[in-house]
Amino acid sequence: MTMGKYAADISSIKEAHARIKSLIRKTPVLSSNSLNDISRRKLYFKCENFQKSGAFKFRGACNAVFSLTDEDASKGVITHSSGNHAAALALAAKLRGIPAYVVTPKNVPICKLENVKRYDGKVNFSEANIRSRDEVAYILRQETGAIFIPSSNDGRILSGQGTISLELLEQAPQIDTLVVPISGGGMASGVALAAKAINPSIRILAAEPKGADDAAQSKAAGRIITLPEVNTIADGLRACLGNFTWPVVRDLVDDIITVEDSEIVKAMKLCFEILKIVVEPSGAIGLAAVLSKTFQKNDAWKDSKHIGIVISGGNVDMAVLWNYLNKSK
Amino acid sequence: MTMGKYAADISSIKEAHARIKSLIRKTPVLSSNSLNDISRRKLYFKCENFQKSGAFKFRGACNAVFSLTDEDASKGVITHSSGNHAAALALAAKLRGIPAYVVTPKNVPICKLENVKRYDGKVNFSEANIRSRDEVAYILRQETGAIFIPSSNDGRILSGQGTISLELLEQAPQIDTLVVPISGGGMASGVALAAKAINPSIRILAAEPKGADDAAQSKAAGRIITLPEVNTIADGLRACLGNFTWPVVRDLVDDIITVEDSEIVKAMKLCFEILKIVVEPSGAIGLAAVLSKTFQKNDAWKDSKHIGIVISGGNVDMAVLWNYLNKSK
Repeated sequence: MTMGKYAADISSIKEAHARIKSLIRKTPVLSSNSLNDISRRKLYFKCENFQKSGAFKFRGACNAVFSLTDEDASKGVITHSSGNHAAALALAAKLRGIPAYVVTPKNVPICKLENVKRYDGKVNFSEANIRSRDEVAYILRQETGAIFIPSSNDGRILSGQGTISLELLEQAPQIDTLVVPISGGGMASGVALAAKAINPSIRILAAEPKGADDAAQSKAAGRIITLPEVNTIADGLRACLGNFTWPVVRDLVDDIITVEDSEIVKAMKLCFEILKIVVEPSGAIGLAAVLSKTFQKNDAWKDSKHIGIVISGGNVDMAVLWNYLNKSK
Repeated sequence: MTMGKYAADISSIKEAHARIKSLIRKTPVLSSNSLNDISRRKLYFKCENFQKSGAFKFRGACNAVFSLTDEDASKGVITHSSGNHAAALALAAKLRGIPAYVVTPKNVPICKLENVKRYDGKVNFSEANIRSRDEVAYILRQETGAIFIPSSNDGRILSGQGTISLELLEQAPQIDTLVVPISGGGMASGVALAAKAINPSIRILAAEPKGADDAAQSKAAGRIITLPEVNTIADGLRACLGNFTWPVVRDLVDDIITVEDSEIVKAMKLCFEILKIVVEPSGAIGLAAVLSKTFQKNDAWKDSKHIGIVISGGNVDMAVLWNYLNKSK
């Protein structure tokens, strides 16, 4: 396989698809006339909340785990994650019959923790900061010899997440614009690489919480910016770009829109009430972005008529969802 | 069209499908390894909560409204309904460009009422009893000359609802058993008629709340039994069988299982947490039935390995859902 200037390309994404196709779910695409009316566009929701493990993360994790040689795989895999990548990796490891060690902060949403345990992931808690996380992970790697699988910044992960575009642009080829959440940039990069290879004129818009807008700041500065702290309800969007994801985001993501947490909550409510789907805050941000004034009033996006929105995941505690929705009244 | 012994047959159902195909949504079929494990079967969820108007009722309403002659249609349509049929009829009428008059009890769920209004249905309230409902409807019909479209007991409605089977048995032809909610019997009848015409060996199981078990009592007695009052959280399952639906239920529905409201709530919770979909109580009853001891321990159903479950609708107020789920802890 010839690899271009990035950590993944359309070939590696197609190879990933061939590798994981029988393991992942081909998620459906939903639409709603009411939401089309509200947004004044035609929206196509790619429901990765229905993906195995409840989030798109299973695509990348699966591709990484099933790319390992038998020898490497035999010692197991390890990661740190706020939740969805951890559960996805645990499930992928379980399917390959190897152990998965997971370092997770103590403040992880309960349902995400339960997901990791459901798939027999071996949970190790750290404090909710990077230093503690890295320490716990370092010790575990020393002890087990397990292979580290990052949540975003990895070619195998990018290639796995890119399979979303392969499916979606086959399910709704009329799509002219794709809106994706951005955090570590694994999904945004994979989706952009695949989509622009299939249709060079397609536009990619990433959506980011205002309280964790490192990607938007990085795009503006032309280099990776990291934030000393982040503040958003979108627990899946608190990571920052890495050296493999940044070049793709820099070159192929056309713009990044930031939205308030209150806009995310409103979008979650619309997903619940109109689409009848359960979406976590990170998963609702694409809809929030499309409904935002920033998007609606920006002439640059007025020709975006058929918009694919990736609903990234559905792992939200009922009690938490209820609290959010109540606060938004 | 030759009609057999019932108010609908496979020909009228196929005609209905041709009539409404471009208007309805072909809803996706979801599945879950976790729920397969819990139920010890393979389950195929036909997600009519994603149907336009949020419930399967749109199929029948659409078929009825678009079957009318222009002259009949011109005066509009009228119905009484606890909610989903009302909204479905309003939407179908709106699409045909005619008025829809809706008589609805004062205790209708808010989101269902909002649905009716969203589609420009003209709402008229009655008390929550049959006498008041019929009085209000009678006066309205006199005033408007609108055509009455029943929610269940009507051949056009049966034919419309039967299109669920046409889609589902094409999407998952391995299905050997279909589980459907039963109330007025329109969906159970339509689904049974179509499914048994396509695959005579398929089995139909209807699910009914214990607090509104008129259909189960009717099957046991061999004649229509009506109840003086009903008591269930499943607001869509409080109607009783009629002269067109009863013969089909009597002959083609293999059995009726009754479940407690608490089992319905548990099933709603599983839909929320595992399938990531929003389901109203009536819509969760099929899963509740399959997970019930009554089903799991009954040898008659042990050969049901591939079970299609119709998720009838998703119109539930968030606050109500939360209350139910909290009570079930």
